[in-house]
Amino acid sequence: AVAAPAVQTGLPEIKWRMTSSFPKSIDTLYGSAELLANRLREITGGKFDIRIFPAGEIVPGLQALDAVQQGTVEMCHSCSYYYVGKDKTFAFGTAVPFGMNARQMDAWIIGGGGQELLDEFYGNYNVYSFLGGNTGVQMGGWYRKQINTLEDIKGLKIRIAGIAGEIMSRMGAIPQQIAGSDIYPSLEKGTIDAAEWVAPYDDEKLGFYKVAPHYYSPGWWEPGPVVHFYVNKAEWDKLPKEYQAAFRAASREAHIQMTAMYDHKNPQALARLLAQGVKLQNFSNEIMKKAFDISRELYAEEAAKNPAWAKIYAEFEKYRKSQNAWFSVAEAGFDRFMQSVR
Amino acid sequence: AVAAPAVQTGLPEIKWRMTSSFPKSIDTLYGSAELLANRLREITGGKFDIRIFPAGEIVPGLQALDAVQQGTVEMCHSCSYYYVGKDKTFAFGTAVPFGMNARQMDAWIIGGGGQELLDEFYGNYNVYSFLGGNTGVQMGGWYRKQINTLEDIKGLKIRIAGIAGEIMSRMGAIPQQIAGSDIYPSLEKGTIDAAEWVAPYDDEKLGFYKVAPHYYSPGWWEPGPVVHFYVNKAEWDKLPKEYQAAFRAASREAHIQMTAMYDHKNPQALARLLAQGVKLQNFSNEIMKKAFDISRELYAEEAAKNPAWAKIYAEFEKYRKSQNAWFSVAEAGFDRFMQSVR
Repeated sequence: AVAAPAVQTGLPEIKWRMTSSFPKSIDTLYGSAELLANRLREITGGKFDIRIFPAGEIVPGLQALDAVQQGTVEMCHSCSYYYVGKDKTFAFGTAVPFGMNARQMDAWIIGGGGQELLDEFYGNYNVYSFLGGNTGVQMGGWYRKQINTLEDIKGLKIRIAGIAGEIMSRMGAIPQQIAGSDIYPSLEKGTIDAAEWVAPYDDEKLGFYKVAPHYYSPGWWEPGPVVHFYVNKAEWDKLPKEYQAAFRAASREAHIQMTAMYDHKNPQALARLLAQGVKLQNFSNEIMKKAFDISRELYAEEAAKNPAWAKIYAEFEKYRKSQNAWFSVAEAGFDRFMQSVR
Repeated sequence: AVAAPAVQTGLPEIKWRMTSSFPKSIDTLYGSAELLANRLREITGGKFDIRIFPAGEIVPGLQALDAVQQGTVEMCHSCSYYYVGKDKTFAFGTAVPFGMNARQMDAWIIGGGGQELLDEFYGNYNVYSFLGGNTGVQMGGWYRKQINTLEDIKGLKIRIAGIAGEIMSRMGAIPQQIAGSDIYPSLEKGTIDAAEWVAPYDDEKLGFYKVAPHYYSPGWWEPGPVVHFYVNKAEWDKLPKEYQAAFRAASREAHIQMTAMYDHKNPQALARLLAQGVKLQNFSNEIMKKAFDISRELYAEEAAKNPAWAKIYAEFEKYRKSQNAWFSVAEAGFDRFMQSVR
């Protein structure tokens, strides 16, 4: 008798769908999802195959999480703060106004217990989260007129969403919800006075500088916005351990890639914008301080009525203070000098 | 006749040795190599197995690159600037004094053509390079007395190596080469006046604060030191494409892990050091500016005699200036405010 040789079937073929909250035109953001999918195909010889769909093809961009929660798709690429309408606590995963910068968010999520705190919360929505990019500190947006004092904010019609919109509202502004494609004509006609988007590389493409030349810094509401890959819990648990490990590694590669590419592209775009006559402005300390104080009032109010927020906020704030005490030493000391001699 | 079933043998078992330039006691640095090896074992079901050896077990820490070049081991975890004795151009991969910070180095290497420039140079040494960590801006070291003016640097016996040592020498200091374990007794006896090491988390363990309480910032010679994985070219080329892809992803995960863990640990260590009475000091602008000017003299001299240096330096400097123009806007504006309200 001839013993049949053991047939090693190897790892399974798995096909997933990822719905993105972004259009392909925001290529740096969208590209980090493509990097994840490509790398996983390479690692597994094509067996773990994730197909990406731009916002709107399967579900609208702001419903990506819901699609993962319900199992319509296995995963998405999205920002947690798109879902603050469900629970404000969602903001912490991506960005809260006057929160932490990109490196500090990494330290908190990777080293400081942030991942565990966030996953406990996301667990209510049937998903696991993985770091999937960071844009760095965003800009404060485009303004038709200069904003010098708190008085100038009163009545300002500004396209801004979420918690930042609530802060602006308490400062007397009138926040507007407008889709990306409608911002330019609204600024041009004067239907709105100002609009925030991302940072030089993405902003330049939409041409806001032609109709609202005052470009304010910094975007205090998005200091280090984290983009996430959310994966349906049951689908994740079904993956072979090898694919889970590959996903962990490749998602971190995608995470760092996004920041590096934004940091690569933004300086060049800023130089081009300045050459077009864009007027770079800083929010005054008076405006920043008022917005900061309002943010803390708002966070305390939320903590009083929302235990999920209260739990994460307490840890987040303690961590932020400790981070700033250290970053004010070597990092700030070096950067400040180098910016003075450039 | 019975057709023999096709036997799928799967991917090969590959065992590599990695020599580290670091002892296990520098756990954050050493740990990122462990993360790479562990992740690769998980992804490949144990088939791609990299065993790590601390500095000194196979070769001394500062000969790690040579061991890879000669094929003694397949790979190492090391810093390029340890090899400036062979060619000063090695400094660019890790850090040059008054170079770029951690995020800027990532942007340059990942997005700005830095990887290609460095790999062309490393090709002369028979290795490929992969990002393998970053400590962030290091500290300027421990001083027995305050250093207020350029006069105070004259005759200063300071433990410092490489290009930074040359700059210190041109400023009138007397650079010393001393192994890590000899620093404490030398500072205690006064054989040396000052010593640079890493940053709060690593520095605290060696107890320098007990004998040299003035802790200066920033370490302008190490603004964003990149640690690298170097792989022997022939060994890399023999890897299946799947393992190469897994290595690319897992090394990026190790890269970001190191920075996140340092950023997590340094604030806590700084707080403990300050509680011990450490005197935190900033180098004066006069000292920083003099050191900066000397660094540019030295780099111009090197460019005049070393074409490899000249080629990379031209690109590096252009990139640095563009990066600082952008980082001075949103990132610096945000960080400065947050450090003021903490």
